[in-house]
Amino acid sequence: MPELALIERIARRTTLRPGTSLGIGDDAAVLALGDDAVATHDMLVEGVHFRRATISARDLGAKALAVNVSDIAAMGAVPVAALIGLGLPPGMTDDEVDDLYAGMEEVASHHGVTIAGGDVTSAPVLVLAVTALGRAAPGVVPLRRSGGRAGDLLCVTGPLGAAAAGLLLLEDPDLAPGLGERDALVAAHRRPSPRVAAGLALAAGGATAMMDLSDGLGLDARRMAVASGVRARIDLSAVPLAPGVAEVARAAGRDPLLLAATGGEDYELLAAVPSALLDGLRTTAGVLHVVGALTPGTPDVDLIDPDGTTRPAGRLGWTHGD
Amino acid sequence: MPELALIERIARRTTLRPGTSLGIGDDAAVLALGDDAVATHDMLVEGVHFRRATISARDLGAKALAVNVSDIAAMGAVPVAALIGLGLPPGMTDDEVDDLYAGMEEVASHHGVTIAGGDVTSAPVLVLAVTALGRAAPGVVPLRRSGGRAGDLLCVTGPLGAAAAGLLLLEDPDLAPGLGERDALVAAHRRPSPRVAAGLALAAGGATAMMDLSDGLGLDARRMAVASGVRARIDLSAVPLAPGVAEVARAAGRDPLLLAATGGEDYELLAAVPSALLDGLRTTAGVLHVVGALTPGTPDVDLIDPDGTTRPAGRLGWTHGD
Repeated sequence: MPELALIERIARRTTLRPGTSLGIGDDAAVLALGDDAVATHDMLVEGVHFRRATISARDLGAKALAVNVSDIAAMGAVPVAALIGLGLPPGMTDDEVDDLYAGMEEVASHHGVTIAGGDVTSAPVLVLAVTALGRAAPGVVPLRRSGGRAGDLLCVTGPLGAAAAGLLLLEDPDLAPGLGERDALVAAHRRPSPRVAAGLALAAGGATAMMDLSDGLGLDARRMAVASGVRARIDLSAVPLAPGVAEVARAAGRDPLLLAATGGEDYELLAAVPSALLDGLRTTAGVLHVVGALTPGTPDVDLIDPDGTTRPAGRLGWTHGD
Repeated sequence: MPELALIERIARRTTLRPGTSLGIGDDAAVLALGDDAVATHDMLVEGVHFRRATISARDLGAKALAVNVSDIAAMGAVPVAALIGLGLPPGMTDDEVDDLYAGMEEVASHHGVTIAGGDVTSAPVLVLAVTALGRAAPGVVPLRRSGGRAGDLLCVTGPLGAAAAGLLLLEDPDLAPGLGERDALVAAHRRPSPRVAAGLALAAGGATAMMDLSDGLGLDARRMAVASGVRARIDLSAVPLAPGVAEVARAAGRDPLLLAATGGEDYELLAAVPSALLDGLRTTAGVLHVVGALTPGTPDVDLIDPDGTTRPAGRLGWTHGD
C-alpha cells in the first residue's frame, strides 16, 4: 500500500484526545505540553527485541506504547501523545498493521494518549520507533533519578518477577504445569501496566528520585544510586514476589528472590522516599513495598541475602557499562 | 560497545541548550515546549532512504536532523530539541557513530536544538529515527497546511531544483562537466537548510497555510490544496530555478522547470499568502517567489506550462495515494 494511503488508514484508526489539537496529517502535530514537558523514545527491532513468531502484532503494539508511557510515569508526569515510526518488512500485511495500532490504541485510550503522528516506511525487518510525550501536572516538577539522598527508603509500587516468570513460561511451555497464575504471568510479560497514577502521587508527595523498573531492581537501583551519588541497599528478603513467581522460579531451578530482583520488564516504579513521608505517600500513591534504602558510600548497589550476607554484584554478570 | 557506554559517549558529544532542562540519561528529557508544542518524526532506513556508500555519516546525521527541523519550521514554530533512535548494523564503528552525531550537532547548534534523548540498539541495517520538538513563538499560532483560501498567492522561500539537480550529479558524475555550481547543487542535496526564520515570519505575518517542500512543489501544492479544500495553480514559468539547475536538467535530458517543480528535497517553504499581505511579508520573511495561487474548484493541482496550457497532473506519475 502506498505510504500516504497507509497513513490515512492509520489516521482513521486513531483517536484525537485532549491535549492534542492537531494529529496525523500535517508537517507536525500540535500539543499542549507546557514548560515541564517530558519526552522519551524507544526503538524496537524485530530479531533484537522481539520475534514476530512469539508475540502478536496487537500485543507488540500495546507493549511498545506501554513501556514508553511507563517512562513518562517514571518522571511523575502525565502522558499526552505518542509519535510512531514504523519500518515495515516485506510481507507485512495491512491487517497486521491494523493490529499493531489496535494494540497501541488500547493503551492510548486507557491513558488518554493521542497517537499524534509518526512515519511509515519499508525496512528489512519490523522496526517500531516510539516517542512518548507528556506534561507535568500543575505544581508537580518532573522527578529525576538523580535526587536520592542517603537515608531515603527505596520503594517499589508492586510485586516483582511476574514478567520474568512469564518469559520463562513462554520459553518453556512445559514449565510448572497446572500453575493457576500462568495466564497472569504471561500477561505481565506481554502487557505491562504503566504506573501513571502512582508516579504522579510520588512526584507530588515528596519522593526524591524515581525511575521505572525495566532492567531489574538490582541494576536499576544501581543506576539510581550512581545518578544520585549514593549507595543502594536492596534487602532480598523484602522483595515482594508476584503470585506464581516462586513456583516458576523453582521449576526453572532459579532462586525466586533473585529472579524477582534481577528479572526485567516489570515496569513497576522504583522511588526513593524520605522515611517521614512513607505513610502519607501510601495513602496517595497506593501500594509501596520498602525493599531497601539509599546509604552513604561509593555509588553502587548491595544485594543483601536473607541470611544477612552481601551478594557481590559482580556475580550477577553486570559490567561497568550496564 | 555496550549500549549504556555508547549512550554515555553520545551524551558527552551533545550540548544542552536553552529550553531543555534535562537531556540524555534519565527516563525522559524535560523540555519547555509550551501549550502549542509541535512534534514530528521521521524514520530513515539504509537501503530505502540512503546508501552508506554514497553519503558520509556526518552528512547523513546533518540531513536527518535538518529535514525534521524543516517540519518544525513549516509550522512557523521554533525548534527546541530532538530525540534520536539509532539502529546500528554489524560493523558500524564508534567513529561512524561519532560522525553521525557530529553532523547532527552541527545542525543542532545552528538552530539552538538540544539532542535531548533517544535510544540505541542493534539492527540489521542502519536506522535513524528522528523526533523533533518545537514551541510556538509568543503570540504565534502554529500554521497548518489546511488554512489556504481561494485567492491566496502561493509563494516559495527560495529557488527550487537544486537538490534534484544535485542528486542527478551524484548519480552521474560525468553529467555537465565543468559546471561551476556543482558543489553548491550537491550540497543542496546533502545539506538542506531549514527555513526557520522565514517560517516564523510567515506564521506571524498572516500566511494562511504552510508546509515544507519535501516531495516537490507540484505534489506538495496538491497536498496543501486537498487539505485546504481548494484548487492550486502552479505557473511553471514563475518557478525560480536555482543556479545551475537549468544546465544540469538539459544535460540529463530533463525539462528544467519541470525538474524544479517536481524534484523533491528542496526544503524551501510553500506558503499560501493573501495578496494584500505579500509586500509586508517580504520585509519580514525575506525572499518570497510567487509561483501560483489557490483557486476555487475541485481540490487538486494544475501545472500551467509557459505557453499557457495545463499539464495533466496524471502524466507526472502521481497516484491517488501520493
